[in-house]
Amino acid sequence: MLTKKEAAEAVRQAKIRTGVTWAQLAETVGRPLAWTTAALLGQHPMGEQEAERAAALLELGEDAVLAFRSQPYRGGLDTPVPVDPTIYRLYEVVQVYGPTIKELIHEQCGDGIMSAINFKLDVERVPHPKGDRIVITLDGKYLPYEW
Amino acid sequence: MLTKKEAAEAVRQAKIRTGVTWAQLAETVGRPLAWTTAALLGQHPMGEQEAERAAALLELGEDAVLAFRSQPYRGGLDTPVPVDPTIYRLYEVVQVYGPTIKELIHEQCGDGIMSAINFKLDVERVPHPKGDRIVITLDGKYLPYEW
Amino acid sequence: MLTKKEAAEAVRQAKIRTGVTWAQLAETVGRPLAWTTAALLGQHPMGEQEAERAAALLELGEDAVLAFRSQPYRGGLDTPVPVDPTIYRLYEVVQVYGPTIKELIHEQCGDGIMSAINFKLDVERVPHPKGDRIVITLDGKYLPYEW
Amino acid sequence: MLTKKEAAEAVRQAKIRTGVTWAQLAETVGRPLAWTTAALLGQHPMGEQEAERAAALLELGEDAVLAFRSQPYRGGLDTPVPVDPTIYRLYEVVQVYGPTIKELIHEQCGDGIMSAINFKLDVERVPHPKGDRIVITLDGKYLPYEW
Amino acid sequence: MLTKKEAAEAVRQAKIRTGVTWAQLAETVGRPLAWTTAALLGQHPMGEQEAERAAALLELGEDAVLAFRSQPYRGGLDTPVPVDPTIYRLYEVVQVYGPTIKELIHEQCGDGIMSAINFKLDVERVPHPKGDRIVITLDGKYLPYEW
Amino acid sequence: MLTKKEAAEAVRQAKIRTGVTWAQLAETVGRPLAWTTAALLGQHPMGEQEAERAAALLELGEDAVLAFRSQPYRGGLDTPVPVDPTIYRLYEVVQVYGPTIKELIHEQCGDGIMSAINFKLDVERVPHPKGDRIVITLDGKYLPYEW
Amino acid sequence: MLTKKEAAEAVRQAKIRTGVTWAQLAETVGRPLAWTTAALLGQHPMGEQEAERAAALLELGEDAVLAFRSQPYRGGLDTPVPVDPTIYRLYEVVQVYGPTIKELIHEQCGDGIMSAINFKLDVERVPHPKGDRIVITLDGKYLPYEW
Amino acid sequence: MLTKKEAAEAVRQAKIRTGVTWAQLAETVGRPLAWTTAALLGQHPMGEQEAERAAALLELGEDAVLAFRSQPYRGGLDTPVPVDPTIYRLYEVVQVYGPTIKELIHEQCGDGIMSAINFKLDVERVPHPKGDRIVITLDGKYLPYEW
Amino acid sequence: MLTKKEAAEAVRQAKIRTGVTWAQLAETVGRPLAWTTAALLGQHPMGEQEAERAAALLELGEDAVLAFRSQPYRGGLDTPVPVDPTIYRLYEVVQVYGPTIKELIHEQCGDGIMSAINFKLDVERVPHPKGDRIVITLDGKYLPYEW
Amino acid sequence: MLTKKEAAEAVRQAKIRTGVTWAQLAETVGRPLAWTTAALLGQHPMGEQEAERAAALLELGEDAVLAFRSQPYRGGLDTPVPVDPTIYRLYEVVQVYGPTIKELIHEQCGDGIMSAINFKLDVERVPHPKGDRIVITLDGKYLPYEW
Repeated sequence: MLTKKEAAEAVRQAKIRTGVTWAQLAETVGRPLAWTTAALLGQHPMGEQEAERAAALLELGEDAVLAFRSQPYRGGLDTPVPVDPTIYRLYEVVQVYGPTIKELIHEQCGDGIMSAINFKLDVERVPHPKGDRIVITLDGKYLPYEW
Repeated sequence: MLTKKEAAEAVRQAKIRTGVTWAQLAETVGRPLAWTTAALLGQHPMGEQEAERAAALLELGEDAVLAFRSQPYRGGLDTPVPVDPTIYRLYEVVQVYGPTIKELIHEQCGDGIMSAINFKLDVERVPHPKGDRIVITLDGKYLPYEW
Repeated sequence: MLTKKEAAEAVRQAKIRTGVTWAQLAETVGRPLAWTTAALLGQHPMGEQEAERAAALLELGEDAVLAFRSQPYRGGLDTPVPVDPTIYRLYEVVQVYGPTIKELIHEQCGDGIMSAINFKLDVERVPHPKGDRIVITLDGKYLPYEW
Repeated sequence: MLTKKEAAEAVRQAKIRTGVTWAQLAETVGRPLAWTTAALLGQHPMGEQEAERAAALLELGEDAVLAFRSQPYRGGLDTPVPVDPTIYRLYEVVQVYGPTIKELIHEQCGDGIMSAINFKLDVERVPHPKGDRIVITLDGKYLPYEW
Repeated sequence: MLTKKEAAEAVRQAKIRTGVTWAQLAETVGRPLAWTTAALLGQHPMGEQEAERAAALLELGEDAVLAFRSQPYRGGLDTPVPVDPTIYRLYEVVQVYGPTIKELIHEQCGDGIMSAINFKLDVERVPHPKGDRIVITLDGKYLPYEW
Repeated sequence: MLTKKEAAEAVRQAKIRTGVTWAQLAETVGRPLAWTTAALLGQHPMGEQEAERAAALLELGEDAVLAFRSQPYRGGLDTPVPVDPTIYRLYEVVQVYGPTIKELIHEQCGDGIMSAINFKLDVERVPHPKGDRIVITLDGKYLPYEW
Repeated sequence: MLTKKEAAEAVRQAKIRTGVTWAQLAETVGRPLAWTTAALLGQHPMGEQEAERAAALLELGEDAVLAFRSQPYRGGLDTPVPVDPTIYRLYEVVQVYGPTIKELIHEQCGDGIMSAINFKLDVERVPHPKGDRIVITLDGKYLPYEW
Repeated sequence: MLTKKEAAEAVRQAKIRTGVTWAQLAETVGRPLAWTTAALLGQHPMGEQEAERAAALLELGEDAVLAFRSQPYRGGLDTPVPVDPTIYRLYEVVQVYGPTIKELIHEQCGDGIMSAINFKLDVERVPHPKGDRIVITLDGKYLPYEW
Repeated sequence: MLTKKEAAEAVRQAKIRTGVTWAQLAETVGRPLAWTTAALLGQHPMGEQEAERAAALLELGEDAVLAFRSQPYRGGLDTPVPVDPTIYRLYEVVQVYGPTIKELIHEQCGDGIMSAINFKLDVERVPHPKGDRIVITLDGKYLPYEW
Repeated sequence: MLTKKEAAEAVRQAKIRTGVTWAQLAETVGRPLAWTTAALLGQHPMGEQEAERAAALLELGEDAVLAFRSQPYRGGLDTPVPVDPTIYRLYEVVQVYGPTIKELIHEQCGDGIMSAINFKLDVERVPHPKGDRIVITLDGKYLPYEW
């Protein structure tokens, strides 16, 4: 059997070998792009059909299907502060703007949080005359502190 | 004189004392809401007029104006992993979805990053029948690795 | 003005000076015992009347009232792993039984979490012939992962 | 031979393979649900019969039986602060409410702790009209500081 | 008012100023030597008479008495691994012999711990022809894991 | 060949397989109980005869003998702060009573340390009407600071 | 298949085996010296032809070619603070001169950064009568903070 | 008296108050720009005349002069990994290119290091049609490992 | 009163103010140079006469005398890994040569340590035609492991 | 092929197997004792003849020769603070005496460091009537800060 982490590595290698894209995987699986990517990287459990379709497209076996379906221990960084520059910029946003976001959530909604569980995510390339932009949308339910 | 950090604390206390909101501050200063909030929390330098208008509205003195105008040492978290739950959820997003975002940036744009410097941020409350949502938009220029 | 942390220290000292208990504070404030204790320790914002009643009972001034009412940056431990033995035992429970609780949440409810926001807490002394027991009840809404 | 940790991983995989639940394992073993789960995750030593029954149900061999019976080095988190969101919420409870629980233990019982050794744990799903709840009960003997 | 930590520093300085020893303090307070030392260093709450006697001998005021009586947040090291060589040797004992002690507790008593709560400590200088020895006795109740 | 650490693991497994106790091993080796346990856990080098006798009793081979005899890199904890509860209690003693022990060493002996090298250790179960006790004796030579 | 990290190790070993230099690799690949070195150490993805030429010169197989071409998770240090003295000196420069460089960037350019993405690097040995010097040139695009 | 760190903060504030630039300070002091900046930020001791000239230009007093002249404890970052984005990019260069620089130093010079002591630094803005660049030159003596 | 740490800072400032050297202090105190320096930096307690002579030469008051005489909590680094380059080189020696020194101690003496308590230290400048050298001699009693 | 670290482990095991000492290895290699030990532990690259002679004496193969000759990534501790007591005492010397050594280097030589690159080391057992001593000599070139 494969762990979720080994399965994620197998996915990355199968993508290079087969040339399949995340977009194709999402279409095949029938789920949103970011959800599918996260699931195949080991952060969500997949349904049986979803797992089988993804494995088939990636030419992976039954052990990958089982790994895709199993419940994850989430968390995808090797160190508390990420070192890969593409991921670090997200951490930098939390460092520089975390308190700003907190203040605005409280001003607009009250004492609570943006859920990271009832949550969806989108990553989009947006053309721009001075250089294209990457727009990441974090969309989570507001959860007020309730005793 | 006040450090940027002391000035940020003074802003938070003056907001309670005066009842002024971040939205009013942004309107007075004439800059976007999130930028103004971040600047007054010590993460951006303000122009002279901006600083004076903000200080006047908050009934703060000249030392606050100077602090608002000075160049920041950015970074607003006390610990590498934030402990406040509202801010932690952002860190959790990086933990759970950081590699997903990285994969999608590379698939859509190539080998590069979303800039956190040429960057803007928006926080919005979006009504929803099953409970309102908080939508945070991270919008940064795509920067390809170029030697 | 007082920070939330300074106000919490003032509360602890006023309790010794006045002999007021957490139970009396909760009754005066009109909120549950654990909520009131947490709020006065700086982990929740209080309403205006709640703050004034608590301050009056503790013979604290207006600056304490303002601090009780202001929005907290939550998190009450000085180090990632707590050193006080009474608090450490709670951390030990997470170390030893954290994965057990995770497995049982997933088996009973599915892929999700127990909310720590829509959440209440109770601490009770329960008489027992072989030595009284402390029963801590953590009661949070189940939040399923939903995209 | 298997280490306790390898045996725990084998249990998790066997559960997927066989479809056996923690509840069935607890019934077969004849011990409480949470104890059985913790034991099979490597946090408690099992008696000979208990270990054999669990291994039989999971279709695991003699090496798993020996591992189940051996004395554990307890502690089930890979990092001091857990990253999996389901487990992190428990840590967040300690961060936000740890000092509250300490104060209430001291007020109700005196100078001492809730034992994490003479201790039992229950996890229950409780139906609720506004969304089901997870109720975790920590029940430990009060131990006063005694010289 | 003084915090427990400030009171501990005041005790250390008063001992130099007055020449009073820990042994004299213990005798005056009427408690064991190590308990009294720990209490005055902020690790145990003292009774009213105990606190007053200690403060009188040390020529300290009422604020010290209140600090001695208040409930401690225990833990006396500034860093997780102590740097003072006299204290480090104790940590070294845990590093080198911790697993040994664990194995022997389990062999002699079963699956449990030596309590650090129902616990007493003694430090004694023992004459020896090849150089005097320091004998530290840790004496804690055996607590078996009980569900 | 086996490393000391692999040999220690082999010892633990052989003890379960053969049912041999630490006490029997100490008697066979002809050394004190705690020394023998520590040595077989990889914290001391054994003499040739000692190593051979221990290996024979545990039904281990020549590679274990060589490992038992080789010079250790000491230190038996996987993390700076131990997570296993039985070992953690020893660390807690250092946290809570470390400065107390330091003060008493200095008062009784002067400016120096208890050696952890010229040192012996004993772990004993002591019957007690209110519950048996574990008594750990740390006995090290006093070493004064000498230039 | 090889990971990027395993491929980097294979490159280092192949260089010793074949005697090929980084300079020869750069010439063969047709890219700058430092870029080529970084790429083969796993910090940049290579084009197909580049990867094949490098692998051929180093007598490595198709799996190395695939690894050279795949997208890296960047970051080449095993610990946050590097321990190898040659690399540590670079960290020391950041420790001692980091704020100096920050101040000069702000004075010469305004509020912004030197990009580490649109960036090139050169390492050169420069003869000098009092001992040759190593000159490292960091050359990155200035990126102003822009909302 | 001022510590070096307090003096550095006083310099930063005096620069805002007086409008004096690092370039003017360097010219007045008669030393290179980066050296002067580093010295006034507390990383180098200044000569008596240098310190007096700098203090005069910044309208600081004799205590600043003494602080400028005193021997530093070098190291200017508050955390092992810097959080300010302008400084972090330098750390990122060490993370991504540290091993590359090491390999090239060894290939070009042999087994040794670039000195960070016999070392000079330059920061320059270089106009470029596609956006100006920042060029940082690290220039240190090559020191071979010599026994 | 002064803590040892505050007294050490007072010594450093008094040395600048008075121009007194460590060598003069050692001669006045009548103890070795390195011992005297360490003692005045807070790492050793001084005798009454020693403390008074040092304070007189440095023109410090009675509170400094008391601080010099009091028992230290030793350890002079602000972080586990020192950042000042002069001190870091000593840490680098431990990193690079620590295991070498360990192996040679064991080969020459057996299983034991060089005491850091029964220990003296010397720092000497030694002229050398290719550049003067600093010779640091660590001279500690060999302590064999003895049970 | 072997990494330097694996080769170091192979050396340690071969020394036990063959009974060869570090002194014999140094004599065979023709280099100083401490240099040879450090090199075979993976901290220095060896020349071809040196590597072959050492491997022959230790009855190791060609892969060890290649590993001995390859360029090291230096640093021999598994953790920032070493846990082995023999090595820890060296770290303790840096903790307790690091600032002392720094002050004496600056007083005797000026603003600079003792090089750890142009550096040699000696470990010697020195007979002494009150117990033999270990004398470790650190001898490095003085490097003044030069811009």
